[in-house]
This record gives sequence, structure tokens and C-alpha cells, in this order.
Amino acid sequence: MTTATGQQQWDKVIIGIDPGTNLMGYGILGVKGKKPSMIALGVITLSKFESHYMRLARIYERVLGLVEQYLPDEMAIEAPFFGKNVQSMLKLGRAQGVAMAAALARQVPITEYEPRKIKMAITGNGAASKEQVQEMLRRILNLSPDDLHTTLDATDALGAALCHFYESSRPQLTKGPSSWKDFIAKNPGRVKG
Amino acid sequence: MTTATGQQQWDKVIIGIDPGTNLMGYGILGVKGKKPSMIALGVITLSKFESHYMRLARIYERVLGLVEQYLPDEMAIEAPFFGKNVQSMLKLGRAQGVAMAAALARQVPITEYEPRKIKMAITGNGAASKEQVQEMLRRILNLSPDDLHTTLDATDALGAALCHFYESSRPQLTKGPSSWKDFIAKNPGRVKG
Repeated sequence: MTTATGQQQWDKVIIGIDPGTNLMGYGILGVKGKKPSMIALGVITLSKFESHYMRLARIYERVLGLVEQYLPDEMAIEAPFFGKNVQSMLKLGRAQGVAMAAALARQVPITEYEPRKIKMAITGNGAASKEQVQEMLRRILNLSPDDLHTTLDATDALGAALCHFYESSRPQLTKGPSSWKDFIAKNPGRVKG
Repeated sequence: MTTATGQQQWDKVIIGIDPGTNLMGYGILGVKGKKPSMIALGVITLSKFESHYMRLARIYERVLGLVEQYLPDEMAIEAPFFGKNVQSMLKLGRAQGVAMAAALARQVPITEYEPRKIKMAITGNGAASKEQVQEMLRRILNLSPDDLHTTLDATDALGAALCHFYESSRPQLTKGPSSWKDFIAKNPGRVKG
């Protein structure tokens, strides 16, 4: 699918989302051939809204707006699987849910990545700091200081999009034994039994 | 606001939702004067979908469909605040989030109620069984056995809607001292200082 954004024609557009209950980061990545480029990067501030519902409504509206503006082919979401307590996880789940609904409303497929997986994909180190992730994104995507004046939450979202680009473009073979089994099952002609 | 549903004119329509990750119940309540009536009751089966995203997409589509069909003025959602573990609460939060997004997409205000609060409002006992809630709903709303052949999850959703009707129609005064303070603040002319 080809998506037009400004004057550029992209082979694929990926929206990365880092949903939180106080801040929500987003990063839009355009892919041309094998080269990813940053299209947009930003943060949705939620802490100014006192009501939990106002925050959820804001996330839904803004993500839907981004989906309609940039027409992404896929969504990558940063999704921690563990949290401090059940209350905070319920709130996080709601924030993720409304962001996902905005993608689902426009038939955009969603893939989620653990923070550790994103850090590993971008920096080669699953325990990398946010600053290290940002520095690698700056180099890989040739980001300018202007691009980076937004908070680190936006680069996390862009990291999720870039991680998804790497994951979806790398060969199945590198995924390890369980995927190797899948590979054999899916490609019977390519493996000598 | 008056909403037309079939040949009936309602003063208010309330949609009750009981979101789960395997089943999602809904109940639509129409209010005419001070009398609530059941308009619709049903269950959305999610367990047939293997993918978590397919389930979320289904919740979003069906709740949006119900909102567009019945044009509710308000949404009441059954929302447990505590759960077994962080993983299940994250999933529950997502299910709640996509259901809420469908309401937020159509500017329907949302109020959430703890299961205990709903049971108390319907039966007078916060620890009532699902069967007791169903029996009280049957009496209050004159439900027929046909209405009740759906699972108990649908009556929980209808219970949330009825609880919301009771909560929103009862006088502020019964809410206790903090609301009394609110009442004085909001109605300075009605209280002698």
C-alpha cells in the first residue's frame, strides 16, 4: 500500500504509540524501500485534564486524528506487561484500549512490543536508558535537535515504530527454534526433510 | 433529550455495559417519567476469537453499533477496581477502554460502578448473588422468561444501567455530608446560612 504524506510517497507508514495516563507519545515512521524516516513526533499532554474520562477521550480523539492524517498501514504500541499494582495496570489498560480502538476503528493492525524488546531492537541492549534509545534514533533516522526538543516519551513511541519496522522486515529465520519450526511448516519446499 | 426507539419515546436512554475478555454483556434501559423499562439485553461472545485484538475490535464495533442504534444519553459501566493479578487487570482495562472509546466517539458520558455498588442498588445487599440481582431485575422491570434466557452477564449490564438510573435520579441530599456541602455550594439560595 502506498500512502501519500505531503510530497513524499511511502511504501509503508507505521504509527508508534507509547500510551500513558499522564503523557502519550507518538511517532510516525515512513518507509521507502528499506529506509525508514521520521515523519512526525509528538506528545499528547493529559495531566491537564482532571477527569479520567477526559483523558481517555483525548487519547482516542488524538490517535484517531493521527490515523486519519497519516493513514498508517500498521500500529506499533509500547506495552509493558508488568506494573506496580492492579490499579495502575487497569488505568494503563484503559489508555491502551482507547488508543487501540482508534486504530481498530480504521482497520489498522496492531502489534505490541515490550519496552525491553524495543530497547534491544534499537540499541542492542534491552536495559538501555531512554537517553541511549533517543541517541540511537537520532543517528538511525538523522533526527535534528529540533526534532528532539520534545520529551523522551515521543522517542519511545518512535522507537516502537522502528522496532516494528525491523521486526516485520527481518527474515523469519532469525526468530529462533520455535519460529524455525513455523518456518518449516510454512515453507515445506525450502527445507530438506 | 428525547430518543425514539421503535414506537416508544423515552425521556432518557441508558446503556449498561459489563465488559469482560471472554463475554461482554449489555443492557439498554429506557426511562419514561420515573419508570425504567428494558429495551434490549444481550451478550457479545468473545471466546470464539483467538486473537486478543480481534476481541477488542469486536467489542468496539458492537458497542459502537449499539450506541448508534439506541442513541443512549448515558453509559453505565460495571468496573471492578480490584482483580486477581496485574495481567488480568491490564486485559480488563483494555476491554473497558475500547468499550469506553465507542461511547466517547459519540459524546456519550460514562459513569462507572463497582459490582458491589450495583448489587446494593438493585437488591439492597452488596454481596448479593448474580441470581438475586437477576430476580430483582425481573421484578422491577417486569422481564419475561424470554428476556432472561440470555446469560447472567447481560443482567449484570442491565443492573449497571438501572443502578445508574437510581443514582442519577435520587436527590443529592441522600449522598451524605460531603454532597450536602456541595449542595449548599451549588444552591446558595436554598439554604439559610
